[in-house]
Amino acid sequence: MYAYGRNVLKEILNAKYSIKKVYFTNSKNIDSELKKLIKKVSELGISHIFLDNEKLEELVETTKHQGVIIDIGREFNYADLNVLNSVDHEPLIVILDQISDPHNFGAVIRSAVASGVDAIIIPKNNSVEVTSTVIKVSAGQIFKLPIIKVTNLSRTIDELKKKNIWVYSADMKGTPYYELDMTYGTCIVMGNEGKGVRENVKKHSDGIVSIPMNNNVDSLNVSVSCGIILFEAKKQRDIRSK
Amino acid sequence: MYAYGRNVLKEILNAKYSIKKVYFTNSKNIDSELKKLIKKVSELGISHIFLDNEKLEELVETTKHQGVIIDIGREFNYADLNVLNSVDHEPLIVILDQISDPHNFGAVIRSAVASGVDAIIIPKNNSVEVTSTVIKVSAGQIFKLPIIKVTNLSRTIDELKKKNIWVYSADMKGTPYYELDMTYGTCIVMGNEGKGVRENVKKHSDGIVSIPMNNNVDSLNVSVSCGIILFEAKKQRDIRSK
Repeated sequence: MYAYGRNVLKEILNAKYSIKKVYFTNSKNIDSELKKLIKKVSELGISHIFLDNEKLEELVETTKHQGVIIDIGREFNYADLNVLNSVDHEPLIVILDQISDPHNFGAVIRSAVASGVDAIIIPKNNSVEVTSTVIKVSAGQIFKLPIIKVTNLSRTIDELKKKNIWVYSADMKGTPYYELDMTYGTCIVMGNEGKGVRENVKKHSDGIVSIPMNNNVDSLNVSVSCGIILFEAKKQRDIRSK
Repeated sequence: MYAYGRNVLKEILNAKYSIKKVYFTNSKNIDSELKKLIKKVSELGISHIFLDNEKLEELVETTKHQGVIIDIGREFNYADLNVLNSVDHEPLIVILDQISDPHNFGAVIRSAVASGVDAIIIPKNNSVEVTSTVIKVSAGQIFKLPIIKVTNLSRTIDELKKKNIWVYSADMKGTPYYELDMTYGTCIVMGNEGKGVRENVKKHSDGIVSIPMNNNVDSLNVSVSCGIILFEAKKQRDIRSK
């Protein structure tokens, strides 16, 4: 699959994620940022070729490639639940229950990395996957964070609970997010853009977390809600560790 | 201009915003929600006609109209700064300095209404305007909130400061958002998706507000950042008024 964009390439290189090939623009007028990237890829001995901008556009079906496309192999490298065994602090985890919009997924990843989340879990079915768009919208931050794909979310939640992780589903009429103590092992479940968290997933959770709202608004954009809750968790953890 | 979607029509009706005409689908298989909306529009004596789904799609260039398109007249009804004179509490205001993405603008509007913001201010030039997409992404919440368009943001900031409103630009290396007292009259300036808040706009502000981040992330999606800061303000105000 292809990833694209300059910051994305930088993050892939930083993460030492495996690269099959890089496609750069063959345009003569390139700036110093792009020159540096070409030099670095060259020095690292990574296979790369130069193509017309039109060819680049065809590869990723967008004009937003910034002269850089990265072939990262057949599929994105998903992690499994065992990665949590190496976490040496109280884990902070996000479950996305059937999110459908790649922009929301990408924005959640960016917020998750910035707030110290240890992993994002998505279900195998009826969920957006990691695509070129998701990677771009995450600003390449996805390469800093394990993305775990599971068959059965309810079973996964039970496993998390066994690891002493408290699982809260985001919905209306629950505990205000700032009244939860999220310095303990915490997992936040965010639901689909239209339907919210599924009933049986909610049933398996330890509780419901809510964002109190004015003016009869009943929901926010899912990436916004997720960011508000995660940064409350980060704040609590920063203050606790001072 | 056209707005579309069922929740959008509901919010327009609730807000008693002026409607020129409503276009409904002429499909025979319509559900009870749509039937209710047609009945309500009819009872209110609002001009409406029925069209093929293809015609509806042509009007708004999207398939997401849900069988409902609303003609709200030539231009969106922007407010001016005087609307702030009728605010009877410490104002909470958002300035969007040259935001370019309609999805971000729509998501900010939704968060702003839900967090009790009194007005959003945008500059006349180099800014996304209110479009059909913005209205849809706001889930129709835009009709609950004055959107003010101004010629010169720096001058507007000076006027806000004269009204005892504290103006903070969002950027790196400023005061953590949760250390600001936002129970006073507060205005948060959010910058363009790529470039952030312009230098001269920052210079006119009272200070810089930041979201501390882990893992060398230097920014979040602008609607997420804005949501995090606004809901901190709402929390402070809710706690203060208890």
